[in-house]
Order: sequence, then structure tokens, then C-alpha cells
Amino acid sequence: MDIRKCGAEAIGTFWLTFAGCGSAVIAAGFPQVGIGLLGVALAFGLTVVTMAYAIGHISGCHLNPAVTVGLAAGGRFPTKDIAPYILAQVVGAIVAAALLYAIASGSPSFDIAKGFAANGYGEHSPGQYGLVSCLVAEVVLTMMFLFVIMGATHGKAPVGFAPLAIGLCLTLVHLVGIPITNLSVNPARSTGPALFAGGWALAQLWLFWVAPLLGGALGGILYRWLSEEPSAQVTGIAPAAPAE
Amino acid sequence: MDIRKCGAEAIGTFWLTFAGCGSAVIAAGFPQVGIGLLGVALAFGLTVVTMAYAIGHISGCHLNPAVTVGLAAGGRFPTKDIAPYILAQVVGAIVAAALLYAIASGSPSFDIAKGFAANGYGEHSPGQYGLVSCLVAEVVLTMMFLFVIMGATHGKAPVGFAPLAIGLCLTLVHLVGIPITNLSVNPARSTGPALFAGGWALAQLWLFWVAPLLGGALGGILYRWLSEEPSAQVTGIAPAAPAE
Amino acid sequence: MDIRKCGAEAIGTFWLTFAGCGSAVIAAGFPQVGIGLLGVALAFGLTVVTMAYAIGHISGCHLNPAVTVGLAAGGRFPTKDIAPYILAQVVGAIVAAALLYAIASGSPSFDIAKGFAANGYGEHSPGQYGLVSCLVAEVVLTMMFLFVIMGATHGKAPVGFAPLAIGLCLTLVHLVGIPITNLSVNPARSTGPALFAGGWALAQLWLFWVAPLLGGALGGILYRWLSEEPSAQVTGIAPAAPAE
Amino acid sequence: MDIRKCGAEAIGTFWLTFAGCGSAVIAAGFPQVGIGLLGVALAFGLTVVTMAYAIGHISGCHLNPAVTVGLAAGGRFPTKDIAPYILAQVVGAIVAAALLYAIASGSPSFDIAKGFAANGYGEHSPGQYGLVSCLVAEVVLTMMFLFVIMGATHGKAPVGFAPLAIGLCLTLVHLVGIPITNLSVNPARSTGPALFAGGWALAQLWLFWVAPLLGGALGGILYRWLSEEPSAQVTGIAPAAPAE
Repeated sequence: MDIRKCGAEAIGTFWLTFAGCGSAVIAAGFPQVGIGLLGVALAFGLTVVTMAYAIGHISGCHLNPAVTVGLAAGGRFPTKDIAPYILAQVVGAIVAAALLYAIASGSPSFDIAKGFAANGYGEHSPGQYGLVSCLVAEVVLTMMFLFVIMGATHGKAPVGFAPLAIGLCLTLVHLVGIPITNLSVNPARSTGPALFAGGWALAQLWLFWVAPLLGGALGGILYRWLSEEPSAQVTGIAPAAPAE
Repeated sequence: MDIRKCGAEAIGTFWLTFAGCGSAVIAAGFPQVGIGLLGVALAFGLTVVTMAYAIGHISGCHLNPAVTVGLAAGGRFPTKDIAPYILAQVVGAIVAAALLYAIASGSPSFDIAKGFAANGYGEHSPGQYGLVSCLVAEVVLTMMFLFVIMGATHGKAPVGFAPLAIGLCLTLVHLVGIPITNLSVNPARSTGPALFAGGWALAQLWLFWVAPLLGGALGGILYRWLSEEPSAQVTGIAPAAPAE
Repeated sequence: MDIRKCGAEAIGTFWLTFAGCGSAVIAAGFPQVGIGLLGVALAFGLTVVTMAYAIGHISGCHLNPAVTVGLAAGGRFPTKDIAPYILAQVVGAIVAAALLYAIASGSPSFDIAKGFAANGYGEHSPGQYGLVSCLVAEVVLTMMFLFVIMGATHGKAPVGFAPLAIGLCLTLVHLVGIPITNLSVNPARSTGPALFAGGWALAQLWLFWVAPLLGGALGGILYRWLSEEPSAQVTGIAPAAPAE
Repeated sequence: MDIRKCGAEAIGTFWLTFAGCGSAVIAAGFPQVGIGLLGVALAFGLTVVTMAYAIGHISGCHLNPAVTVGLAAGGRFPTKDIAPYILAQVVGAIVAAALLYAIASGSPSFDIAKGFAANGYGEHSPGQYGLVSCLVAEVVLTMMFLFVIMGATHGKAPVGFAPLAIGLCLTLVHLVGIPITNLSVNPARSTGPALFAGGWALAQLWLFWVAPLLGGALGGILYRWLSEEPSAQVTGIAPAAPAE
């Protein structure tokens, strides 16, 4: 495992968590002119678009344990590299949450009790969606996210567009799912804010590991079945990423 | 007819209906920070952008009976494959509506009587547009949608950009037409939610088969006439999609 | 002058006017969930993105007399073809306004006195901007629009991206200028709605011919000077468009 | 130093400041249908997208002293050209602010006391963020902006997409940071409006030179370390830009 790849994953997941959750904590509900859920959905997607062009050629730009596991399930990523990738992603997300806390707490209107962009279900779902709805939504949305990643990085897909397709897919799943769980599809992104929100956010964190990892694996397998791929052709998000 | 192509069309139309209608049902009217019609328009467009990059090289990524018929009318798709494509699309859309119902009904604020993203005219038009306005709007918007699809997948158009052009065109027609009919231009997308909304939605469903199919055929013919194409060159949305 | 090129310009300008002004008339102010000025800005831009991919390889996709004149001033378009292009554009815009009127008037909330997306200055400026501000804004925004068109279609710019750059530039000028003049930068787009709005809209129409044409010519000349181009290399928006 | 490069930087930074700040001053708070912070974030990003396609092949399209310094720190830009680039950028931004003032003051609702899109901290932060939060946010956001610029213009990144990645990254940092400092990451963009807003805006201007320049240099160095680049390969934003 190349240290540069892990460094890229840590920086990239830092960016996804810092800018994605940051847009939610700082700008979504700004009086009169706030960016709303649409702006937050766009922000999460753009973290992937920007990083996939910047580091796709280094690490494949997963930024998400569910992506790493899903690509492995789809035959696109070596299983021996799963653990270091996920570790780097979680470290990046925790640093991001710490920095976001430091910045956001500099405003008199900051209140950690608003949730700090943590994910939740039941009474902690933004729209009070029950556990089953939240579980199903996270599984299905992560599955389709991986399906798109597998397809857009396939050797027959147009070269160079995968970062746009994948980033905009993350925007899309947020456009559907923020009211349900505040939208995770990414265990690392969920872990960072939960450590600072504490309490219910930590108690409910298990769902945002189980459902995205399960959904990601299903998505990788579904695409592999559909495309009848005999073997791995691509390592990650960027089409140009060489196999290790 | 390749089973993989039909599978791709079913999965893709599932995604268009689940995420497009899902954004409308779950997130459009969320208090204070809802995504509004702009977010719904973006969501529908991004379902096509993401799927066109993911499965364009498998099935051409029609996801819509009006696209299939329009491409056939434009000389780009074999007539013998129209029926299985449309069947797969409708199945995908119905499964999507069922799953969306299961998830959305997990919120205490869910109310099927709000319409469940079904399409309608007259008193069931969001802006109370009359039947003639709705019919004309669906025909014209589907016609121009197909015109753009035909052009963006033409052999002289820049390679690889068709999924962006076509997906963003679907966003554009939604930016104009949601207040008129809740915007269909896609009989499969209309059929799924209508089955669950029932009543008026089923009674008005005929319009959302007739108008898009007519408009789609007109668009395919219009572009073919304008470009004086002697024969089919492309099978679907993705420029790289090989003829069967 | 090829009849296909004029047909493409007429259809494309129809689309720009119908969908751009349509989004403003039908969806911008929809209660609670309307798309607002941001949605209208996006809609105008997407009309160009979609058409530039669809017909760029046929006519160059000007869709705007100011673009045609600006490209001629910049040495990219033959002067003898200016008149037929502008005629086709104006015809397309008028047909679009007529069709939009027919559809929009099918809603009980339609009121032509709201302006029908016509452009205006002074008391008819959305933000009551004075004549001088409106004139300067239209000149500068059209100048920069043409500057971007000239640059993005230059032989050294990345191939295939010009439609995105140019369409998103039209979105950008709308993000700045709708409150000033309802934003024109396009005499054809201004003429269509003015014929139906009548009265003040027709009386103020002169500004939306004079300012965009002047700004467009300045933009073409400015870029030509900056890039020291010896001769024409590109005919219009699409990089791949061959010289006539 | 080529006069054409400086001319391109001046025109480009004029556009960034005029259209970016213009969208904030003119359209963000328009009653009922204003574009809000999301629209302003999109506008700033699109100024870079449009200019990077238009002049990337001339000057590299920096439009920002922090980009120029960051690329130099990253080994991508000759230090001897830093001064003329920054001078051209500041001149362009000041002209933009002057023109924006002339246009915006033509509306009866214009009030320079609203801030004229100047950047600020403490009581002049839109969300009353303290000095430390503002300083840290500007350093981190500029650092990541440069990290993305360095990566997206790397020789292994997909060709032609850098303008999209970089422009959308500017949108992203605005989605996070407008409530904190009104978002700068660009000393030239900050200088123009501050000269017209005067008072506190001039007194606080130092922060918007110090933090972006520091962050930009850190970002350039961070990416260079991560990618272990032996030497400069690219001069600026556009992948195709030749070394001087």
C-alpha cells in the first residue's frame, strides 16, 4: 500500500466531510438567503467532482468506505488494500469534523445541539422517518451510487467524465435523501460529525456503517453481473487510474 | 434482444423514477430549506446524466418509451426492439414507485393525497393548466427533448458530452413544465406513481402516454429531416453505443 | 446560405426563447417552491448548452443576433450571412412567444400585465434601474458573453467544451442582470415577448437591439485584439463547425 | 512578460469581480425570487469556468493573486512573473468594482452601506464569525482550492476538464464560506469592492491578502509533496497552456 494513496484518500475525505458538512452547518439555514438542502446536495457532489479530478490519478478517489468495499465486491479493487483505505478515510473525516467544529463555534449562532450535520433515524431523522425507511433508503441509494461508479469508470464509458457523473450522483442521492437520514451513504462522513455531536449521533452511528457498506457491496455486484465483467479493469473513480 | 440491455433499461428507469419522483415527494416541500422545483428539475436531469454514463454503453440509456419511439422514428433504433425496451422501462418505473411508497410512508408527514408526484391536467395540474395547454406542452417539450437527443448523439457532435446535454435537457424541460403537468415527457415515469396515487392519476394517465409518444416521434422526424441523415448511425443516448 | 443552417437557427432560437422565457413566466414565481431567478438563469443557459451540442455542427448555434454580429466583428463569420441568420433567429423567437402565450394563458393565474418576460428599463426594470445603468449593463454583459464565445471556440481551447462554457456564461450573465433589465443580451429573445406584451415593451425594445449588438461587436473585437488572430478559424459556437 | 497574458489576467479578474460581486450586490437579495447565496456561489464559480475556457490558453487564467502565488509555490509558475500577474489582477478587480458601482447605483434600492460585497470578519462577518474562525477558514479554503487546481491541471488528470473542476471548486468554497467572511480566497476580488465600501472594509482588507496568500502557498506545496513532482509541468489552469 502506497503512502501517497492513503494520503490522498485522507485529504480527499477531509474535503468531502469538511466542505459537505460545512455547507450544511454554516450556510444551509442562513437567514433569508441560505443555500438550503439544494445547496448542501450540490456541495457534497462538488467535493467529489473536484477531488476526483485532483487525486483520481493518485488513489482512485474513493473518499468513502462504502465505495472501497463496493469496488472490491465488484472486482475492481484488491481486498488487501481495503483496510488502509478505510482507515485513511476515517482519519480524514475526523480531522475535518474537528476543524469544522473549531471554525463554526466562532459564530454566536452556532449550536451543537442542532446536530452538527450528523446522520440519524427515527426521532433524529430530519423528517422523522422510521428506522426501516432509513435503512432501506441508505442501502438503495448507496447501491445505486456504486452502480453508477462502476458504470462510469467502465472501460467503455466516455473517458474523463467519470468524476462529473459520480460527483453529480452524490448530489442526486442527497436531493432525495437528506430529509430521511440527513444522508450518509458514507460511513466515514457519518463518523466525523457523530464524534462531536455525541449522544444519539454515536448511538445511531451503526446504521451508517451497516447500510452503506451493504448497499455498496450490492451495487458493485449488481453492475458486475449486468456487465458480465471477467476481471478488474479499473481501480477507482478516475478512468486513468492504473492498477496498483 | 439482449437480456442485459433490458436489464439496464429496467434499472435505469427505476433510477429515473425513484430518484426523480423521490426528490419531489420527499425533499421539494421540506420546511424552510426544501429543494423546490429547481431541485426536482435538477434531480430528474441527474438521473439521466448518471445513468447515461453508467449504462449508455450497454443499452443506449433510453429510460423512456418516448425516447425509444422517437429514436425509432428518427431512424436510430430498430422497431423490433421497441416493445421489450418499453416493457423493461415500465417494469422499472413500477418497482421504483413501490419502493418509494415504502420509504416515504415511513414519515408521519407523508400523505398520498398530495399526489405522489403523479402527472395531471386541469384541476390536477399544479398550476391548474387546462387540458389543451397540458397536451401542447407535453408534445412540444418531448419533441424538443428528442431533437436534442438526436443532435447530441449525432456522429458530428463532440464525443462523450451527450449524457450531459441530454440530462441537462431533461432538467430544462422540468424548469419550464412542472407547474403545467408536474412534467412527464416520459410515459413510464408517469405510470409508476399513478398506480399508487390511483383515482384521478390513473384516469388522466392516457395523456402522458399519448403526448410524449407523439412528441417524441415528431422530434425524431424533425431532426432527421434537418440533418438529412441517410441512415441510422447511433442506437441511443451514448455516442459509443454499438448497434445491436 | 444553406437552408438547413437557417432552419437550425430558427429552431434553436425558438428553444432559447420558449424554454428560457417559459421558465420565467410559468415557474419562477410559483408559490412556495418556485424556481426563482436562479432557476431562470439556469434555464436560459441550458437552452444554449443543449442546442449547441445538438445543432452546433450544423449552424454554429448562434441563436442570437448579437452573437452573429459579434462573431462577424471578430472575424469568425462571413458578413454576407448575417442577415439570413438574424431573420431566422427572429422568426424562431416570435413563434416561441406565440406558443408560450398559448400555453401559459391556459392557467387562471396567467396575467400578461406581469410582463411576459419582456425586457425593460427605468420603471419597467425589475429593480427600477435607470436607462444608463441598463444600457451599460447590457453592453458590458454582451461584450463579455462574446469574449467568452470567441475564446471557448478558439482552436487552442479544449475541444468539445465550448457549449458548456458558453451556455453557462449565459446563465452567469442572467445571475447578474435579471434585476436590471430582466436580461436580454439577445435582440431576438427580446423581440418575441415584446410583441405580445405590447405597449411599453415595444416602446423600449430599441435598447435591446442597440446595446447587445454594440456589446457583441465590442466583445468580438476585444478578443480578436487580445489573441492577435490573423484570420477566421471557427464559424460559431461548436468547435467542430466547418467554415461554410 | 507578455502583455497579452497580463491583458488576459486583467480582463479575467474584471469578470470574476464584476459578475461574482455583481450577482451578490444586484441579485442575491432580490425580493421573493432572489438567487441567494447559492446563486452567488454559482456565479463566482462560473466566472472561472467561462474564463478558463476563454483565456486559459493565453495566460493560464489565474485571476487571483493566491492562485499565482500558490502555483509558484507548487513549482508551476515562474517567480519572476508573479508581480506583473498580481498587478494586472488588481487593476482588473478595481475597474470591475468601479463599473459595478456605476451600474448598481442606478437603482433606488442600492445602498453602499450594505457592504458592496466586501469581505469582513468579526462584526462585519455576515454570520458574526470571529477573527480566528475567519482567518482559519480563508487559509483552509484557499489551501484546498489550490490543491484542486494543482491536481486538476496535473499531466495525468483528464484533459480539458480542469476549468470545470476549478470553477466548481470556487463555487464549493463559496457554498461553505460566504456566511463566514463573505468569502474571499482572492485578494484582488477583495480589494476592488473594499475601495468603494471604504471604512471597515479597508481596515479589514489585510486579512484577505494574508490568509489567501498563505493558504494558496500551502496548497501548492501540499500537492507538490503528495504528487512528488520533480518539476513544473503546467503553467496555470488550462492543461494546454504552454510554459512561457
